[in-house]
Amino acid sequence: MAATLADPDTPFAALDRSVLGRNVRRLGDHLDALGVPLRLHVKTAKSVEVAAVVFGGGSGPITVSTLAEAEQFADAGYDDVVYPVGIVASKLPRVLALLERGVRLMVVLDSVEQARLVSDASREAGVRIPALIEIDCDGHRAGLEPDDPAVLETARALADGADLRGVMTHAGGSYFSADEAELRAAAGAERDAVVRAAERLRAEGFECPVVSVGSTPTAFFATDLTGVSEVRAGTYVFMDAVMVALGVCSPEEIALSVVVEVIGHQAAKGWILTDGGWMATSADHGAEGYGLVADLAGTPIPGLAMTGANQEHGILSIAPGSDASLPDLPVGTRLRILPHHACAAASQHRAYEVVDGTATIEATWPRSGGW
Amino acid sequence: MAATLADPDTPFAALDRSVLGRNVRRLGDHLDALGVPLRLHVKTAKSVEVAAVVFGGGSGPITVSTLAEAEQFADAGYDDVVYPVGIVASKLPRVLALLERGVRLMVVLDSVEQARLVSDASREAGVRIPALIEIDCDGHRAGLEPDDPAVLETARALADGADLRGVMTHAGGSYFSADEAELRAAAGAERDAVVRAAERLRAEGFECPVVSVGSTPTAFFATDLTGVSEVRAGTYVFMDAVMVALGVCSPEEIALSVVVEVIGHQAAKGWILTDGGWMATSADHGAEGYGLVADLAGTPIPGLAMTGANQEHGILSIAPGSDASLPDLPVGTRLRILPHHACAAASQHRAYEVVDGTATIEATWPRSGGW
Repeated sequence: MAATLADPDTPFAALDRSVLGRNVRRLGDHLDALGVPLRLHVKTAKSVEVAAVVFGGGSGPITVSTLAEAEQFADAGYDDVVYPVGIVASKLPRVLALLERGVRLMVVLDSVEQARLVSDASREAGVRIPALIEIDCDGHRAGLEPDDPAVLETARALADGADLRGVMTHAGGSYFSADEAELRAAAGAERDAVVRAAERLRAEGFECPVVSVGSTPTAFFATDLTGVSEVRAGTYVFMDAVMVALGVCSPEEIALSVVVEVIGHQAAKGWILTDGGWMATSADHGAEGYGLVADLAGTPIPGLAMTGANQEHGILSIAPGSDASLPDLPVGTRLRILPHHACAAASQHRAYEVVDGTATIEATWPRSGGW
Repeated sequence: MAATLADPDTPFAALDRSVLGRNVRRLGDHLDALGVPLRLHVKTAKSVEVAAVVFGGGSGPITVSTLAEAEQFADAGYDDVVYPVGIVASKLPRVLALLERGVRLMVVLDSVEQARLVSDASREAGVRIPALIEIDCDGHRAGLEPDDPAVLETARALADGADLRGVMTHAGGSYFSADEAELRAAAGAERDAVVRAAERLRAEGFECPVVSVGSTPTAFFATDLTGVSEVRAGTYVFMDAVMVALGVCSPEEIALSVVVEVIGHQAAKGWILTDGGWMATSADHGAEGYGLVADLAGTPIPGLAMTGANQEHGILSIAPGSDASLPDLPVGTRLRILPHHACAAASQHRAYEVVDGTATIEATWPRSGGW
């Protein structure tokens, strides 16, 4: 194992576990105060080691983005799982195999058509497949509106064979909030939508024990989660420049970085070129570019951002609107890119070089991939 | 091995080798007519099987985007390689190891500082490291302008220990061409810049046998490559929606697709939801979105595009400006996403399911990754 962040060939992903630990405690304390348990979304880190930090070395309830994650975490002892991508027939054999292994895997759906499919498969397999109905709280992605008559029709079709566990929603629209007031409103709307749907189901005699909300911004800005049974969040473990822009965290609270090396300059343009392109950070970018920039010790460099990317070339420059001057960073200088979007940047790497507040690499944590 | 594209769990990457073969022949014929050999950029496919299609089963000159690719292709017998990411000291041990294996690996640089580094390392290792000077033809990325005095200074610093092989440039700006006239102009400017630099070097007594240009758009739109010794291109093997938008190819000429499955609908919004999000296509997107859409047989569906993406959710809708109506695609329907950017979409997958003009899977070709 390499000794410090100066050693592995660049680009590579670095994870500061002291920052990770603070992020984990911060959301944990907040949810404790609200009296609602966390269901960790493992899609960001895809690492059983990171999940072990969250759960203090034990196991706990998780959300996955793929069945491959469900299988990987089942191998590590995680047996309480939500798979929140609308279920289809082709995925049911792997769902049934996980249920047979003793994993309480809840599938998610938002139509009578899918509910019939899951009920039919349940009867055929002799297993009531646990399912949640997805509720749309902000028009951002999938789900039924809470007052849609299809919520009750879907519940009836599910109860006819499967195990209706409750409802879930995801406030994806919260990522587009302009300020703290909008974030608080998004958190309120997320709760209201799913609690309203649960009340309608209960009025029709469905027990509906699971009332699940989740997104990193709304998890932090929620002030009242009455009626909610769990909060799903994942990005918060790493944080990223999107969360900085939303006011969820500061650059110093970003635990994940991509270590790159300066490979050249275009002085007339004010560009510093690095060996970290979109292959290293992902192509995801926003107003600030592909990421903020810190020195190898992790201290953010004011005004500097990764403003351009080719496959294996990154362009660093002073962000528009900043009055900072371009630092003198000779060829060979190593830097940390604090990514725009942690889930996407992490997905470009197969492992994390783990440090603990210094440049010393203490461990290498593998990351899973695929579907 | 799964029998047809209806079988593997979605999402996955599919590669039609009949389309691939046509793309390979098309550029091959064009470069034959211009009398300039191809140096295949393997960064798009990262597959020795795809390279074997290009070289008729043998080996040939390649460009790599990472040293990991150079090592992988060296294992497969490729011994003539350009590594075009500005060289730094930390990468020289792997460069020297490849040279020692008998791979003629040319490094690329654009400063006196780097030239001294490579010359010093050459003398220390007792091996003249082959090197190219990068020329900037369009202000898009790295490189020295052809008339910059630093071109000659860099050559002198290189000759003092290393093996100056010549010059190279990349017309990255051609991707932003508005029409065919601009593409032809970009191809002309690319050639002119690098030929001019070579002439200056030869006037100073440097032999400069390598005069290398390359980008998929300029490779197809070049009409005269006098003075150029090789053309680097990679994206053309797969093609993508960027190339369609540039007029380089039609949607039917895109060999790579991501197979996804419909998982739901938001009828009021005109959305079809799939299980292929940015994890399956990459976050790279343009005016048309994350990709065009074809049925499972590969026939493009007019007007339909992947206009939104979460990590594992894709949103398909009728592209703005199209008068097509949303097709009826029930839950469970499989589709092919013809990606916006083939290099980025391919990088999200570890293998290609290979078909040959039909839905029958004839082979699974692995793809390399990492650095």
